[in-house]
Amino acid sequence: MNGLRASGTKTLMLFGGRSHPELNDEVAERLGVDLVPMKAHEFANGEIYVRFDESVRGCDAFVLQSHTDPINDWVMEQLIMVDALKRASAKRITVVAPFYGYARQDKKHQGREPISARLIADMFKTAGAHRLMAVDLHTAQIQGFFDGPVDHLWALPLLAGYINEHYDSANMTVVSPDAGRVRVADVWADRLGTPLAIIHKRRDPNVANQVKVHEVVGDVAGRTCLLVDDMIDTAGTITQAAGALIAKGAANVVVAATHAVLSGPAVDRLKNSGIRELVVTNTLPIPEERRFDTLTVLSIAPLLARAIREVFEDGSVTSLFNGNV
Amino acid sequence: MNGLRASGTKTLMLFGGRSHPELNDEVAERLGVDLVPMKAHEFANGEIYVRFDESVRGCDAFVLQSHTDPINDWVMEQLIMVDALKRASAKRITVVAPFYGYARQDKKHQGREPISARLIADMFKTAGAHRLMAVDLHTAQIQGFFDGPVDHLWALPLLAGYINEHYDSANMTVVSPDAGRVRVADVWADRLGTPLAIIHKRRDPNVANQVKVHEVVGDVAGRTCLLVDDMIDTAGTITQAAGALIAKGAANVVVAATHAVLSGPAVDRLKNSGIRELVVTNTLPIPEERRFDTLTVLSIAPLLARAIREVFEDGSVTSLFNGNV
Amino acid sequence: MNGLRASGTKTLMLFGGRSHPELNDEVAERLGVDLVPMKAHEFANGEIYVRFDESVRGCDAFVLQSHTDPINDWVMEQLIMVDALKRASAKRITVVAPFYGYARQDKKHQGREPISARLIADMFKTAGAHRLMAVDLHTAQIQGFFDGPVDHLWALPLLAGYINEHYDSANMTVVSPDAGRVRVADVWADRLGTPLAIIHKRRDPNVANQVKVHEVVGDVAGRTCLLVDDMIDTAGTITQAAGALIAKGAANVVVAATHAVLSGPAVDRLKNSGIRELVVTNTLPIPEERRFDTLTVLSIAPLLARAIREVFEDGSVTSLFNGNV
Amino acid sequence: MNGLRASGTKTLMLFGGRSHPELNDEVAERLGVDLVPMKAHEFANGEIYVRFDESVRGCDAFVLQSHTDPINDWVMEQLIMVDALKRASAKRITVVAPFYGYARQDKKHQGREPISARLIADMFKTAGAHRLMAVDLHTAQIQGFFDGPVDHLWALPLLAGYINEHYDSANMTVVSPDAGRVRVADVWADRLGTPLAIIHKRRDPNVANQVKVHEVVGDVAGRTCLLVDDMIDTAGTITQAAGALIAKGAANVVVAATHAVLSGPAVDRLKNSGIRELVVTNTLPIPEERRFDTLTVLSIAPLLARAIREVFEDGSVTSLFNGNV
Amino acid sequence: MNGLRASGTKTLMLFGGRSHPELNDEVAERLGVDLVPMKAHEFANGEIYVRFDESVRGCDAFVLQSHTDPINDWVMEQLIMVDALKRASAKRITVVAPFYGYARQDKKHQGREPISARLIADMFKTAGAHRLMAVDLHTAQIQGFFDGPVDHLWALPLLAGYINEHYDSANMTVVSPDAGRVRVADVWADRLGTPLAIIHKRRDPNVANQVKVHEVVGDVAGRTCLLVDDMIDTAGTITQAAGALIAKGAANVVVAATHAVLSGPAVDRLKNSGIRELVVTNTLPIPEERRFDTLTVLSIAPLLARAIREVFEDGSVTSLFNGNV
Amino acid sequence: MNGLRASGTKTLMLFGGRSHPELNDEVAERLGVDLVPMKAHEFANGEIYVRFDESVRGCDAFVLQSHTDPINDWVMEQLIMVDALKRASAKRITVVAPFYGYARQDKKHQGREPISARLIADMFKTAGAHRLMAVDLHTAQIQGFFDGPVDHLWALPLLAGYINEHYDSANMTVVSPDAGRVRVADVWADRLGTPLAIIHKRRDPNVANQVKVHEVVGDVAGRTCLLVDDMIDTAGTITQAAGALIAKGAANVVVAATHAVLSGPAVDRLKNSGIRELVVTNTLPIPEERRFDTLTVLSIAPLLARAIREVFEDGSVTSLFNGNV
Repeated sequence: MNGLRASGTKTLMLFGGRSHPELNDEVAERLGVDLVPMKAHEFANGEIYVRFDESVRGCDAFVLQSHTDPINDWVMEQLIMVDALKRASAKRITVVAPFYGYARQDKKHQGREPISARLIADMFKTAGAHRLMAVDLHTAQIQGFFDGPVDHLWALPLLAGYINEHYDSANMTVVSPDAGRVRVADVWADRLGTPLAIIHKRRDPNVANQVKVHEVVGDVAGRTCLLVDDMIDTAGTITQAAGALIAKGAANVVVAATHAVLSGPAVDRLKNSGIRELVVTNTLPIPEERRFDTLTVLSIAPLLARAIREVFEDGSVTSLFNGNV
Repeated sequence: MNGLRASGTKTLMLFGGRSHPELNDEVAERLGVDLVPMKAHEFANGEIYVRFDESVRGCDAFVLQSHTDPINDWVMEQLIMVDALKRASAKRITVVAPFYGYARQDKKHQGREPISARLIADMFKTAGAHRLMAVDLHTAQIQGFFDGPVDHLWALPLLAGYINEHYDSANMTVVSPDAGRVRVADVWADRLGTPLAIIHKRRDPNVANQVKVHEVVGDVAGRTCLLVDDMIDTAGTITQAAGALIAKGAANVVVAATHAVLSGPAVDRLKNSGIRELVVTNTLPIPEERRFDTLTVLSIAPLLARAIREVFEDGSVTSLFNGNV
Repeated sequence: MNGLRASGTKTLMLFGGRSHPELNDEVAERLGVDLVPMKAHEFANGEIYVRFDESVRGCDAFVLQSHTDPINDWVMEQLIMVDALKRASAKRITVVAPFYGYARQDKKHQGREPISARLIADMFKTAGAHRLMAVDLHTAQIQGFFDGPVDHLWALPLLAGYINEHYDSANMTVVSPDAGRVRVADVWADRLGTPLAIIHKRRDPNVANQVKVHEVVGDVAGRTCLLVDDMIDTAGTITQAAGALIAKGAANVVVAATHAVLSGPAVDRLKNSGIRELVVTNTLPIPEERRFDTLTVLSIAPLLARAIREVFEDGSVTSLFNGNV
Repeated sequence: MNGLRASGTKTLMLFGGRSHPELNDEVAERLGVDLVPMKAHEFANGEIYVRFDESVRGCDAFVLQSHTDPINDWVMEQLIMVDALKRASAKRITVVAPFYGYARQDKKHQGREPISARLIADMFKTAGAHRLMAVDLHTAQIQGFFDGPVDHLWALPLLAGYINEHYDSANMTVVSPDAGRVRVADVWADRLGTPLAIIHKRRDPNVANQVKVHEVVGDVAGRTCLLVDDMIDTAGTITQAAGALIAKGAANVVVAATHAVLSGPAVDRLKNSGIRELVVTNTLPIPEERRFDTLTVLSIAPLLARAIREVFEDGSVTSLFNGNV
Repeated sequence: MNGLRASGTKTLMLFGGRSHPELNDEVAERLGVDLVPMKAHEFANGEIYVRFDESVRGCDAFVLQSHTDPINDWVMEQLIMVDALKRASAKRITVVAPFYGYARQDKKHQGREPISARLIADMFKTAGAHRLMAVDLHTAQIQGFFDGPVDHLWALPLLAGYINEHYDSANMTVVSPDAGRVRVADVWADRLGTPLAIIHKRRDPNVANQVKVHEVVGDVAGRTCLLVDDMIDTAGTITQAAGALIAKGAANVVVAATHAVLSGPAVDRLKNSGIRELVVTNTLPIPEERRFDTLTVLSIAPLLARAIREVFEDGSVTSLFNGNV
Repeated sequence: MNGLRASGTKTLMLFGGRSHPELNDEVAERLGVDLVPMKAHEFANGEIYVRFDESVRGCDAFVLQSHTDPINDWVMEQLIMVDALKRASAKRITVVAPFYGYARQDKKHQGREPISARLIADMFKTAGAHRLMAVDLHTAQIQGFFDGPVDHLWALPLLAGYINEHYDSANMTVVSPDAGRVRVADVWADRLGTPLAIIHKRRDPNVANQVKVHEVVGDVAGRTCLLVDDMIDTAGTITQAAGALIAKGAANVVVAATHAVLSGPAVDRLKNSGIRELVVTNTLPIPEERRFDTLTVLSIAPLLARAIREVFEDGSVTSLFNGNV
């Protein structure tokens, strides 16, 4: 035959955006690789520039970026990294977004709104991404927004393992902080074997003008209440829920959440909330000044590293994933 | 200028698949148009053939099909109708699916599953659809599966209007039949000004092997319980929920749901369930033999006709839509 | 270099839809693999569910489905299987459709018709298929409907081998059953070295109202007439052709066709047709009750298995294929 | 409402490539418009340059080009015209290709061939064409190669009208010049109410090395034989067919074909063929030096003009079209 | 005919992002419309939310945003606005970017860089934009990055009009500040009828280590030197060029540029540069604190308003545009 | 696991169009492969036919074609080759266009022009090309026209090496023949360490009607002037520039250019131009009759062969490329 033959090997390369360098380093160490060196900076007018310092031809690229504030800059940087990889002939490009930005705008709540979570998925596809990896998407349907494989990792085993070690589930009730998160709370309750309660916000019939009361539906008096959510942003919902539980006689309130956005008044609210412990992961960077005594941060890096390795090796560790191996 | 000028007018044309002729006729009557005559039949080996009997060039086409059983045939027929319209130069094609098939497979519950709801959206796009209209999608995120405008209609005002006329909401509790539908129940409770309760399935700690008990979370004794859901398929969940409510002393159980799939054992279960009334719409055809005394069917045709007219006239009646005018 | 290296190997995996389990098994056995276990069932309302029971990451997937009646269900099942494979990271997905459904609607015979054969090709592409394999497409142009490689297999060597073994071609005339299949008959005549005849349907000038007579063009008296076609559906055309040949003094009528659709009145017609033998393949399942004495079924499995292996190994066995190695 | 309103009108504009200026002019005259003035020339290295001399914003553009020799130049010119129209904001672009180039490469006859007819369709789509208009495609399946509406015009009524006027169909037999065109001959026979015959090329069993004889299948002695084909290229097939018919005692041989490619030895062959008259249309330009006494050229311009007007006005004159109104 | 007819009218609607409200208002006023009211804010974690306050169904939408710092936020906001318009059924969406961000990364200067200007174009396409309008793209080739019509406006007539009014071109030399902008300077020189000079940066052969000297190529002594560029960012290049001209005896240095980015040290450099006047437009907002005595700002709003109106009305005012009417 | 495993190897195969067989052979020899045998010819009406004579399944295909006159034929042939490779299951297809045709139409110079360079890029993508390789694109932005990796090779080192060997750069000035090529001249001047001059065409103020004079900007008297350009087409610009330099007292004029189009009057002009030597590469074929004494042709084959090998082996030799490894 007329041709030149070569054996096919494949190479995993790890690329890290600038939003969360500690996580980049942890994942690289777990994988046993060095991050590919990258030049990146902003021009004076805010435009981002990136360039990789070594050849990436034919590699299996994993591009890690945490969508933290300033979120549009980090999303754009990751898109630009993907574009550069595509044009430099990477063979396959996987976007790793431990926290997937704009996930909450996953539907139109009212007319004439965007569905930004779909837009983000389409933009990564347009830039050249072949697949997506994320931890605890706000709704699992976001998997369907991306036209390609999505590895949807699940922090629940990590968080639940910690809770099991430190708390007694016999006297525990899992509580959903509002009507929208009951499905997640249900999975937790099923795993821990506990009853379920929910916080229901309703208009106070005794007061005019849409004042809402936080009604606790279910039994919580004297129990350890585990409030679960996918993310803590301004902490308004979760601290009001905690207040309602305490008012109903809860013995303890513990919170488990994957993504610690902790923006705006979150830290103050949490410190003053009577919550005994808030257990989160480091899918988002948490700067020193936003940490506090009752905050426990578990590392998501081992999970990411195992998932990346599985994807690279075409392996199958279903337990890592929620519905998408 | 070198050219031929003509004034631009536009023409709405309504096309109906064969799954639900009564609804086709009702919508056409409400719109004040005739359905475009169509030849359609199956070949002996099951292949579907369609052909329109008059010119459709340049029209604004609305293609109505209810995704009832045999669902794959009706979806395929609608796809083929869209293809024929595209090739016959319809200017704009709107797929009207009062009940959107495969909506429940909207995410991967486990690994190696399809996301069929996205596949359906992509297939309509591929066939040539420009927009989609549907009533009460199983999850609102499905809007984001289609790459184009989606008119997401809401049957709640229709159903709630009936409930308000026939029942006293002062003694009512809205109940979610399981953890996954609490968000919908919450909207109902907010609209009717009632408390909320949920049915929580949990493993019975006293019995081995995953036996589940239906735990009622919230107060229901002596109250009219309004169980709400988007669809009633085999009616297993809803009748078990009704049983649990009656066991807890509910005065009455009423059910409101948009889509009456009523498949398999549904009718028998409902007849024997103690449910006082089941209020549904006719997004799906309900043959005579599946109707029963306590079943009330409201017509969705006025809502569809108004929405089609608004879309055709570029109007805006936000109240028709849930988040997508 | 910063990276993790692994040797690239590739894995062929065979997936079988539920339409034709015997063919699945035969092909698997020929390939020396097991079918990948799959859960598949219909929900009560007809929606199809599938899930694969083992990891398919990175595999070279071949998805076998015979588009038999109920054809829309089997096409949809195959689309859903492809979607699931795409989302589960199969590396390459080949749709194997021994009989390609809707192939006859490959053009607009009149205005405002669909071109369903193109729609089917586009839907498989949309779902995620990279390539297509089929046996004896109704027209070879269907290859051009798919945007990617098509392996167009040819049953003629298999069928002609059988004819050569059992009949004497010296006294044989190949006959096209109508004007549309003359090209195929021509290839047969060329291969067997026989004369050609055709059946021409024309209006009877002596009778009003479009009555058609089956005129035999060519010499057939005293000869073994081999009627050839790509498929036998209701068998109307082929049995009328046989009748015309017998009326013209044919010594024998034998039929060779690839796809035995055999729908509706086909079996009765064939039994009473005076056709000495009907030789077909099992690209479609033929249930016991549709088999009859003069029907001979040759297995297409060896051809499919060889072609799948060639595709997997990037080999080239042109003789397997008609114009698409 | 916040906005500026304007009434919508639409303007038909006709653009002509440089391959067939007479046809451009005839169509423009029939439509009652002037061709949009266009600068077009080749650079010294063969690159084509075009520019339109007046605004085309928002127009309904029809771009006429005959794919005659040098065919690649004219196809490229038409593609470049479409690109320029797209970038200059034409609202809708229809490619009018009276003779669709590369139509004969509509499938893979052998392995590792292109399907150029699909490539051409895709290239027009990529350049920006919304729809395609063509006369007598080599195979009707080519309609399915374009992802959008195709107006497939039919010259048969024009040609058959002429034949009917000048010949007596009572003593006529329609003849297909080879096995591949029988379907077309069948339509002609049906329209004219004549018998059918075909020319079958087969290996001469008495001579070695693949010598083929032209066998006449059907009765032709003493009859007027009307050979029909979609195109006459080098005229080899048609003149050999004529020779075979004359040898079998045909009284007269007349040829009707839509596309007069007349390349290479065609004119010499036809002049010496004994064919009484060759009736064609001017879908392709026929220069003076390639015209001869027995050649009759009918103008396709009225058909094109009527079809263009119908498309512009969203009208429906099914009789113009073969299966694609 | 079966259908409902309505006359087609079209409505221009103007949407303004939050980056440059003064320009929004000026353009709206010139057009005689109100901006469509829009809710827009950032969530605490930086995610942007937008919603339009009135129906946009069927409108011809123009979405104005100036890509100023923080540029990624404003690009993202504009993308989200486009997505919302697409999903709310706007008929046509034109992105108006007076300054097109990331335009300088229009090619790979070195290996493994992105081509961000193409990425931006593709992202607007993905979000749903049908066309693009921009003023003085960094290179005209960027027009080709967008797959659709681009209206490329030209500020030169505006700027040159001002220069002609205030300076005598008889004693003027147009100067390109570096080798990359000579083409633009050439157009200016041609329009004003002046000689041309360029500043050439070259290594000083007398000094080691890549020190560059700014060599003036052309005669400038005693003349008014008009330095022209598309944008002034940090003003390094332009002030070094001015210095070199002054050193060579230029009588006066005047600068004309379209886009006043004026980032980082720009203002200080310009104040101390000896430049007599810097004439720019307001394609980008220039806050009060970045304005200075010798800065003249001309409004681009009249040009944008005229171009928007022309596009809406399908008009043709070639003089507005540089090569893209 | 259920599957068949095979080790993955990859095979480079080289395909050559018919435009420049000598270059095909040189590249093949350098790579140590044989060209894949291909049947290619024109039909009588100018349609091109190609077919490869051996299996190409799974190969890494490089398709070499020089876009010389008749350029549309060679572009079309290359597109058809790519289509054939796609349909024959080549794994990756790289279009190698040493001279990229239509590169000069890379923007709209006036309204209603095409951007043919983008059209060409899109057509290769549509046909099935995954990547593009070219030498010295007319503007580097053309890289951004292709949606995928582009290997942009640079002939400068080859040409500059020759100049350095044969001329003394100490007395040299690099000259841009017009305002549009100054950027390239700047890179040359930087590499050779010379001053820069440009030829500026301006209207002669003493003569009416747009007569242009060629003004030399910069010092050239007594120096060796190296005129540089990417291509020499009709040689009008370059010979006028040479004339202007000689008139200004240049000691010598030497020209270096990558692409020797040499069309129309080029050879005559060059012979009579006083240019001492014209150094070019063989990216385009130069027939014997267009060669002349002062023309030096360097082979581009070693550069192409090295680049192809690097791409195949996923290697990185940045020095080969200009900004796109």
